[in-house]
Amino acid sequence: MTAFQTDATIATHFLPPTDSRERVKQFMQQLQDTICTGLEQLDGLSTFKEDSWEREEGGGGRSRVIRDGAVFEQGGVNFSEVWGTQLPPSILTQRPEAAGYGFYATGTSMVLHPGNPYIPTVHLNYRYFEAGPVWWFGGGADLTPYYPFAEDAAHFHKTLKQACDAHHGEYYPVFKRWCDEYFYLKHRQEMRGVGGLFFDYQDGRGVLYRGPNMEGSAATYSNQVGVGEPRSWEELFAFVRDCGNAFLPAYLPIAERRRGLEYGDRERNFQLYRRGRYVEFNLVYDRGTIFGLQTNGRTESILMSLPPLVRWEYGYQPQPGTPEAELYETFLVPQDWANWTATT
Amino acid sequence: MTAFQTDATIATHFLPPTDSRERVKQFMQQLQDTICTGLEQLDGLSTFKEDSWEREEGGGGRSRVIRDGAVFEQGGVNFSEVWGTQLPPSILTQRPEAAGYGFYATGTSMVLHPGNPYIPTVHLNYRYFEAGPVWWFGGGADLTPYYPFAEDAAHFHKTLKQACDAHHGEYYPVFKRWCDEYFYLKHRQEMRGVGGLFFDYQDGRGVLYRGPNMEGSAATYSNQVGVGEPRSWEELFAFVRDCGNAFLPAYLPIAERRRGLEYGDRERNFQLYRRGRYVEFNLVYDRGTIFGLQTNGRTESILMSLPPLVRWEYGYQPQPGTPEAELYETFLVPQDWANWTATT
Repeated sequence: MTAFQTDATIATHFLPPTDSRERVKQFMQQLQDTICTGLEQLDGLSTFKEDSWEREEGGGGRSRVIRDGAVFEQGGVNFSEVWGTQLPPSILTQRPEAAGYGFYATGTSMVLHPGNPYIPTVHLNYRYFEAGPVWWFGGGADLTPYYPFAEDAAHFHKTLKQACDAHHGEYYPVFKRWCDEYFYLKHRQEMRGVGGLFFDYQDGRGVLYRGPNMEGSAATYSNQVGVGEPRSWEELFAFVRDCGNAFLPAYLPIAERRRGLEYGDRERNFQLYRRGRYVEFNLVYDRGTIFGLQTNGRTESILMSLPPLVRWEYGYQPQPGTPEAELYETFLVPQDWANWTATT
Repeated sequence: MTAFQTDATIATHFLPPTDSRERVKQFMQQLQDTICTGLEQLDGLSTFKEDSWEREEGGGGRSRVIRDGAVFEQGGVNFSEVWGTQLPPSILTQRPEAAGYGFYATGTSMVLHPGNPYIPTVHLNYRYFEAGPVWWFGGGADLTPYYPFAEDAAHFHKTLKQACDAHHGEYYPVFKRWCDEYFYLKHRQEMRGVGGLFFDYQDGRGVLYRGPNMEGSAATYSNQVGVGEPRSWEELFAFVRDCGNAFLPAYLPIAERRRGLEYGDRERNFQLYRRGRYVEFNLVYDRGTIFGLQTNGRTESILMSLPPLVRWEYGYQPQPGTPEAELYETFLVPQDWANWTATT
């Protein structure tokens, strides 16, 4: 890994097109539409209800919620487009070059909580920022199973890897690692799930990586780490589009093959308990949630990611040798899922 | 309100006794014992189970959990005593004088989640810190009802006020206000409940107040606000003891008179929904939780405050004219409960 261009180089060589905001916004809306249509077809019983909202400081969005479905106990797919006079502190620490400038942000985010504990919870978020001299893409998708099916984790990762590899072989390894590190509950010393992709701050200077140890400090371009050749805005946008469009093929087959599995109180209780980790992660660590709350976002839309029913139990430990224990031991630690095969 | 003594004055005039740690620790343990005994008598069915634990960096505690009781669906009363080489950032920002020094902290904290939605959830925490040249007491107790009974809120406040007033008439008004401000969910623009008492940083320089607008900045003694005469360590310790001992008389009568009320799905669902606010507050704002997680505290004990079962519902609004609406309108906004009478 090598350090990349200086600020001045970036500003000159990587300008977005003049219609960048409109194009990304249209893609984010279309991604929301496509995903909602695919999920409604899967569910077959319930449909999304939409709320449109406006943000006083600038912008707005459309929140779509599905609940009490055949597959989804609750799920939300949000599109939003917001702007304002300055980015909140949590982002300015990471992008000090944006201080003193207005900002524009648009994105689509989604969390699905299936009723059947054998179907994993899943999250997706893609977003785009412009602020003064800087712009960047961020996002990803990650899977949180309750019960350990290796083929599900492998299918999810392989599908996302394929989308990445079509653009550049360096994307998947870097963003898979970043995802493992980001969706990590330090106070539990556990991953949230089996990961997927996560990236942020992608502004064309190769494949940028800024792991957890590099967060929170006053970062500048020169202390980030990148690999490979610079990318243009167009190349990055195409990459993000393909990642977003890979979601349905990555998730639908998993939900289809688990939806018919019967379960009882034991599985349901474990699912409700593990959902607690989702709440802990989103409220304590998640930068999307913090960004939303700090920018006077629409609370109901931001917290749509929280599960419909959740359980906490003091001192719970899975019984050794059970599927619940296997989840902790094998699935909540980093694994090379993209290279998993049925014979391993 | 006037600003108080300089750092040098404090260091000279307000030294704690040589056995301060031992005495406060013993009180905190005794408070835990007294409260657990009183709650077991109230519950009548379940009892507390204790886990003792040690902390690698120094110290330990005893966590006690009651569950599946006649009154308490789940409740925890923790005692802890911890020390280390330096305070975590969240406290050093508030007490920069302690930078570079080791610290000692002891306290008792409690959260009770009754099963019957007509019985309020309640929280108590009293704590004591020493770090280099500074020491202070903090704590309080606050009530979170699900259904609007003015006499319950009034009884709780009157009992705590009485304990405060026995020491000084300035305590209750300042700490009641601080509690209203502290247990506030900014992203919901709601109070967590009907409040009670909250204070922090009490080091003898009168009755110190440092409201939300003064949090987060690099505070020094000179930018805090205090009222009244300086207090000695002994006076403050006696005040904290009386506040702690006022808990059972403040809460037990409320639980006794509501435990027999019948309820149905509507009340239960509303309780589970409102418990979500408890989770949001504790994970997003609570300094005790953040302190615990930042100091590698015992996660299971720290998160014992989270309710056993919780519900989130997108876009919920209470129906006008219902008890649920009255809770929002009249109980989740600051009220002068100590002066409430049945005729108002």
